[in-house]
Amino acid sequence: MIYQFGQNGAAFPRRVRVVEVGTRDGFQSQAEWIPTEAKLGVLKGLIAAGLREFEATSFVSPRAVPQLRDGAELLAALGHPPGVKLTALVPNAKGAEAAAAAGIGAMVVFVSASESHNLKNLNRTRAASLEGLAQVRDIADAAGIPMQGAIATSFGCPFEGEVPVESVLMVARAYHDLGIRHITLGDTTGVATPPLVAERVRSLRAELPDLEIALHFHNTRGVGLANVMAGLAEGIDIYESSVAGLGGCPFVPRATGNISTEDLVYLLHECGIETGIDLDALCDVARAVEAIIGHELAGQVMKAGPRLQTAAMDEVRTACG
Amino acid sequence: MIYQFGQNGAAFPRRVRVVEVGTRDGFQSQAEWIPTEAKLGVLKGLIAAGLREFEATSFVSPRAVPQLRDGAELLAALGHPPGVKLTALVPNAKGAEAAAAAGIGAMVVFVSASESHNLKNLNRTRAASLEGLAQVRDIADAAGIPMQGAIATSFGCPFEGEVPVESVLMVARAYHDLGIRHITLGDTTGVATPPLVAERVRSLRAELPDLEIALHFHNTRGVGLANVMAGLAEGIDIYESSVAGLGGCPFVPRATGNISTEDLVYLLHECGIETGIDLDALCDVARAVEAIIGHELAGQVMKAGPRLQTAAMDEVRTACG
Repeated sequence: MIYQFGQNGAAFPRRVRVVEVGTRDGFQSQAEWIPTEAKLGVLKGLIAAGLREFEATSFVSPRAVPQLRDGAELLAALGHPPGVKLTALVPNAKGAEAAAAAGIGAMVVFVSASESHNLKNLNRTRAASLEGLAQVRDIADAAGIPMQGAIATSFGCPFEGEVPVESVLMVARAYHDLGIRHITLGDTTGVATPPLVAERVRSLRAELPDLEIALHFHNTRGVGLANVMAGLAEGIDIYESSVAGLGGCPFVPRATGNISTEDLVYLLHECGIETGIDLDALCDVARAVEAIIGHELAGQVMKAGPRLQTAAMDEVRTACG
Repeated sequence: MIYQFGQNGAAFPRRVRVVEVGTRDGFQSQAEWIPTEAKLGVLKGLIAAGLREFEATSFVSPRAVPQLRDGAELLAALGHPPGVKLTALVPNAKGAEAAAAAGIGAMVVFVSASESHNLKNLNRTRAASLEGLAQVRDIADAAGIPMQGAIATSFGCPFEGEVPVESVLMVARAYHDLGIRHITLGDTTGVATPPLVAERVRSLRAELPDLEIALHFHNTRGVGLANVMAGLAEGIDIYESSVAGLGGCPFVPRATGNISTEDLVYLLHECGIETGIDLDALCDVARAVEAIIGHELAGQVMKAGPRLQTAAMDEVRTACG
């Protein structure tokens, strides 16, 4: 039975696509080098657990993100597992050439909704970034590879504070003009809230009804899965997450990163939503990722175990309530 | 503007009562002694931050829960701050006498929905526990103190697995017969899910419409605030939580405890719901609690800071997305 929000509330989608971004958004902030072999093992483990969509790496400057400098090598080693979609972040023509050569499944371009964040992240204005994407499109078209568009700081900016919905729509319109039909609203610094999710999704749908919308949340302020609930109530059926809750944000050193894939999948399954993912196998991978990183990560279900795991009564001293 | 779940979804309540259980459910699992003075400081800080309802302590056996053996002393030192409601857990007649002597605002009795958990936690059957409450009621009535009823393992049992809604209703009916009109559904081991929240709340309301219902969630599997969203969609306006996300569960050593009060308040405020609480002041107390406990706690907002806190552009190296 699909969960329905409140007595007359929206029914949730029956099936959700979970897009794993751990090897990109999760690993990119890890200072210590993770061997390509280890990254490959994580991707293979996740595919074995039933995940079918990955933002696997970035074709950005190895100076800017040294951890992802092995993107081409990683993709070559992984090959083209059947039924699996692999995408990569592509900031410019150079990245697009590399991504095309790697035979990527889709190129993900990214521009921030906020001018300051775009300046900081890409060292140019939003207008200049968007203009530069025509070149990326030509390369993608020539290679027969679809483009997708991510909108960073879609729910707020670490330099400007609130980001008006109009700024999100402006970038979305430009993406649409470039022929992009899959857009991800990125909660770059973990400031999304349920009302903002509803507002942005509704506005985007009203203006560009032929878009496929994905949501990318961070759990920086603990409400990542509450935002997923808001997205589900709007009928959104694509969510990006990181295995084990990998990731982080340079603005908040002690904060957690992306929403955890296994906690997301747990929530979806418990709400009666199909994902095609084996949660137990996914938790095994999450624990392996924690071992690779070498310190405790934020994912909860990998630690707590299945909901209905039972203990023998003489095993435990209880004082709960 | 109050958030509405989906286009035709339920509107959330305008105001929510946040019940702090950190000094009871949070502290009880701490092995190292927390001085009464420190506990008092936490309660006073929370009152100064605008919290008005507390499950402050337990009048249980000091052998069973040594950390809470200073309940009477703590309440005496706190006195009766105006507008503040202080409750305590009371397992039996002995506890009720002590609670009455301490001038508690309400006695909270507790029985598990699952027979095994009740046997383990209280060393007697649910029927025997419920029968024993007649004595507590007589003491409470004589002292003019209201009773409240908590139902432990309302969403699942660590020994039995699923708990049928009928078991929750059975305990609720017995409470109702004792004159209790405020019932808390306790997610003792963190197995509540949105559909179970909706099912249990709707069943309870249908059968006992004059009950005030409170929800008590743990974030053991990361979905505590998603469950709050489900509760809000059902119109529930009383939630129990622990400052800094204190608490834990003897069944899952690495798991987090109760939902964090400051993360809950952040979510509520962002959804346009009033609580009367000053979030910044609350986060100060949460950080102080972390210092008292001496290791990192699970609350997120106390670490990440306010949503719209902005940084200077030259302060931060960014590589987010």
